Amino acid sequence: MTDERDGQPRVPVVGMVGAGQLARMTAQAAISLGVGFRVLADTAADSAARVCADVQVGDYTALPDLLDFAKGCDVVTFDHEHVPGQHLAELERAVAVRPGPGALRYTQDKLAMRGRLTQLGVPCPRYQPVSDLAGVSAFAADAGWPVVLKAVSGGYDGRGVWMCETPDEAAEVLAHGVAVFAEEHIDYDRELAVLAARSPHGQAAVYPVVQTVQRDGICHEVLAPAPRLRARQALQAQRLVLEIAAELEVTGLLAVELFETPRGLLLVNELAMRPHNSGHWTIEGARTSQFEQHLRAVLDLPLGTPGAVAPQVVMANVFGGSDPHVYERYLHVMAADPGVKLHLYGKGVRPGRKIGHVTALGDDVDELRARAGRAARYLATGED
Amino acid sequence: MTDERDGQPRVPVVGMVGAGQLARMTAQAAISLGVGFRVLADTAADSAARVCADVQVGDYTALPDLLDFAKGCDVVTFDHEHVPGQHLAELERAVAVRPGPGALRYTQDKLAMRGRLTQLGVPCPRYQPVSDLAGVSAFAADAGWPVVLKAVSGGYDGRGVWMCETPDEAAEVLAHGVAVFAEEHIDYDRELAVLAARSPHGQAAVYPVVQTVQRDGICHEVLAPAPRLRARQALQAQRLVLEIAAELEVTGLLAVELFETPRGLLLVNELAMRPHNSGHWTIEGARTSQFEQHLRAVLDLPLGTPGAVAPQVVMANVFGGSDPHVYERYLHVMAADPGVKLHLYGKGVRPGRKIGHVTALGDDVDELRARAGRAARYLATGED
Repeated sequence: MTDERDGQPRVPVVGMVGAGQLARMTAQAAISLGVGFRVLADTAADSAARVCADVQVGDYTALPDLLDFAKGCDVVTFDHEHVPGQHLAELERAVAVRPGPGALRYTQDKLAMRGRLTQLGVPCPRYQPVSDLAGVSAFAADAGWPVVLKAVSGGYDGRGVWMCETPDEAAEVLAHGVAVFAEEHIDYDRELAVLAARSPHGQAAVYPVVQTVQRDGICHEVLAPAPRLRARQALQAQRLVLEIAAELEVTGLLAVELFETPRGLLLVNELAMRPHNSGHWTIEGARTSQFEQHLRAVLDLPLGTPGAVAPQVVMANVFGGSDPHVYERYLHVMAADPGVKLHLYGKGVRPGRKIGHVTALGDDVDELRARAGRAARYLATGED
Repeated sequence: MTDERDGQPRVPVVGMVGAGQLARMTAQAAISLGVGFRVLADTAADSAARVCADVQVGDYTALPDLLDFAKGCDVVTFDHEHVPGQHLAELERAVAVRPGPGALRYTQDKLAMRGRLTQLGVPCPRYQPVSDLAGVSAFAADAGWPVVLKAVSGGYDGRGVWMCETPDEAAEVLAHGVAVFAEEHIDYDRELAVLAARSPHGQAAVYPVVQTVQRDGICHEVLAPAPRLRARQALQAQRLVLEIAAELEVTGLLAVELFETPRGLLLVNELAMRPHNSGHWTIEGARTSQFEQHLRAVLDLPLGTPGAVAPQVVMANVFGGSDPHVYERYLHVMAADPGVKLHLYGKGVRPGRKIGHVTALGDDVDELRARAGRAARYLATGED
C-alpha cells in the first residue's frame, strides 16, 4: 500500500510482470481506479514502459529481479505466461501472486492442461503424449492424419504448434528434440473464445462468447458476440469456462479458446490467464473492460458488469507493414471513419508484428467488419 | 516528433501545462492514440504526475520553465487557464500553442470575454465595468439587486464571483481592490453546458447539451443529455457554441456554461478552453471522449464522433470528506452497483476537494442520478 500523507489515500500497488500492450492497457484501467501500477519491463522501450510512471527494467527469468520488483507491490500479476514455475513458488512467499503458481502451471504445461481438463470432463480434442515417430503413427492410426504436434512448453522458432500432414513432417518436428504431444486435428467450423474473471473470494463474471477469426494461426478479428451462436451453446460455453476457472482456482482473467465443430460440439483448444487479445473489444464494447476486470479480480474487489454495451462489436488487429509511418495514416483513417476507435501500442513497426487494434461498434456485423478491417488494413499498409 | 529507431513510428508529443485530473485523463487518451504526452506539474505528487511517464516539475508562471517544457513538444496545451498571457505569446514563438493566446485571453479576462461575446451578438447577462460603489449602485438602479460582482481575472480567497444582496456587501468586495465588473443576477431555471472541439484546420464537432447541477457554485452532477430540453433549444445552444469557437478561433475544446431562464432564454455564463468537468461523462458515455477529442483537435487530426452511446448518462463528482480511506470503500460501492464507473484522481483527500467522479449509463435519468449519487456519496463519506 502507498503511504498516507497529506490526506493521500492508501491504495494498493499492482505489479505486472511484462510490459507489452496488455500491461499498457491495464495501466489505463489502473489510472481510472486510482490504484498503483508498476511494470517489470525487458527494456525501457517496451510498450507499457513508455507510458507508465512506475517501471522497473529487469529479467523475469531471474528470481532476484522478480523479488526486487515485488517489493512494495501488494499483488503481482502477469502480461505473459513465461515466468519460470519455480520462481513463481518463491515469489508467492513474498507477495500475493495472482493467478497463483498452481493455476499458471496449466498455461505453461499444455500436457498438464489437457490432463486436468480431461479429468474434469471438459470436452477437448483427443491427445496422446508421444516420444517418437512410432508413437505419432500409433496415434494417427486411430485419430487419422493430419496430426497436430504441440510443444508441452515453449517450442522453437517462435512456434509451439505444428500441423503435420505426413509422418515425414512429424519426424521433422520431433528432430528438434522439444517435448511434444500429439493431438487430433479438429476440422472445425470456427473458433470461439470465452473470457471470465474470478476473484480470490470466489466471485466470477463471464463475458459474452466471441468468435475469433484467425489466419495462419494468428487472430485477426474478434466478433462480439459470436454471430448466430445458439443461446444454449453460448450458455454451455460460459458455464464451461466458469467451471474451469473455479476448478483451476484461477484468480484474475481466464481466456479459453474453443473449436466449434460442424456438429456443434465445443472443444477446448487453449487457455490463457491474463488479459487476452480476444477481449480487447471490451475496452469500448463492455461495461467493464477486461483490463479493469483483471485489476478488480486480482485486488479481490467486487467484479464489474461484463455485459456488452452495443448489439455488435468488432475488433481488428493492426499488424506492422514495411513502412513505420503509422501515425501519419491517422489523417485518412480518422477522416474516413470518425466513429472507429484506434489503439496504437507504441511498438516498433516490423512486418507482421501486432502494433495496435481497431474497434467498431454498432448493429450489423458485416458492416462493422468492413469498417474495422478497412481501418486496420489502412493503418498497416496505407492501402484502402 | 519522437525519433524513429528500430521501426519505432514517429509520433508527435503533446505537452500539457498543469497536471491535475484533466491532464491525468488526457494521458489515458494519449495512451490509446499512441501519441507522446508530457505534463508540466507543480509537484511530482500531482494527479497526472503520479501516472505519466514524462513529467517535468516546474512553475507555469515562469517563462524559462515553460520554454524548457516546450522543448521536444510538438504542441503545448493546458489543463488550466492560469499561464500569464505575456508568456503565452513568447511560448508561441517556440512551439504550437493550442488554444492560442488570442483565444485564451477570453478565459483569462472575463470583461474582455463579455465584450467580445456582446460584439458577436451572443446572448449574455447585462454587465458593466465598475470601479467603485457608485458604479455598482448605478448598475443596480437599472438591473436591480442582487448584483453579481466578478473579478476581471483571478480573485481572492479562491473565489472570483460574489453575489451581493446589498450595497454593503458590494463595498466589502470592492474593498479588496481586485478589478471587478458588475453583472445582472439571472434568476435561471437551470444551468446547461455545451462542449465543442475545433481544429486548426477549422473542423468542429459539438457534444450533446448537458445540464449541470451546482451547489454553492460547484458542479455536483452532470445530466447528459439535459433532460426535457427542446430540440430547437439544444440546436440553438450547439450552434451558438460552434459560432463562438469559430469566432474566437479556439483550437482544442471549448466548454460554454449557460443559464436557461424561465422564459427559455439561453445566456452565456462562462467559457473554458480545455477538457471540462461537464464533459467527464463522455469517457464512457460518448463515442469519442472529450480527452481524446482535445488531443485530436490540438494535433489537427480529424475529430471523432461526439455522439452519446446511451440514451442517458449521469456523472456525479466525488468530494473529499474527513476520512481519506476512499479505496476501502470500493468494496461496498462495487458490490452494490457493478455497473457504475468509478474514477479516482489519486489526489490527497481534503474536505470539499474534488477527488474523483462516478458515471452511470442507462435509460432513466432519475434512476441514474440515484445510482451515481449514491456511489459518489458513499465514496466521499462512507454513508449510504
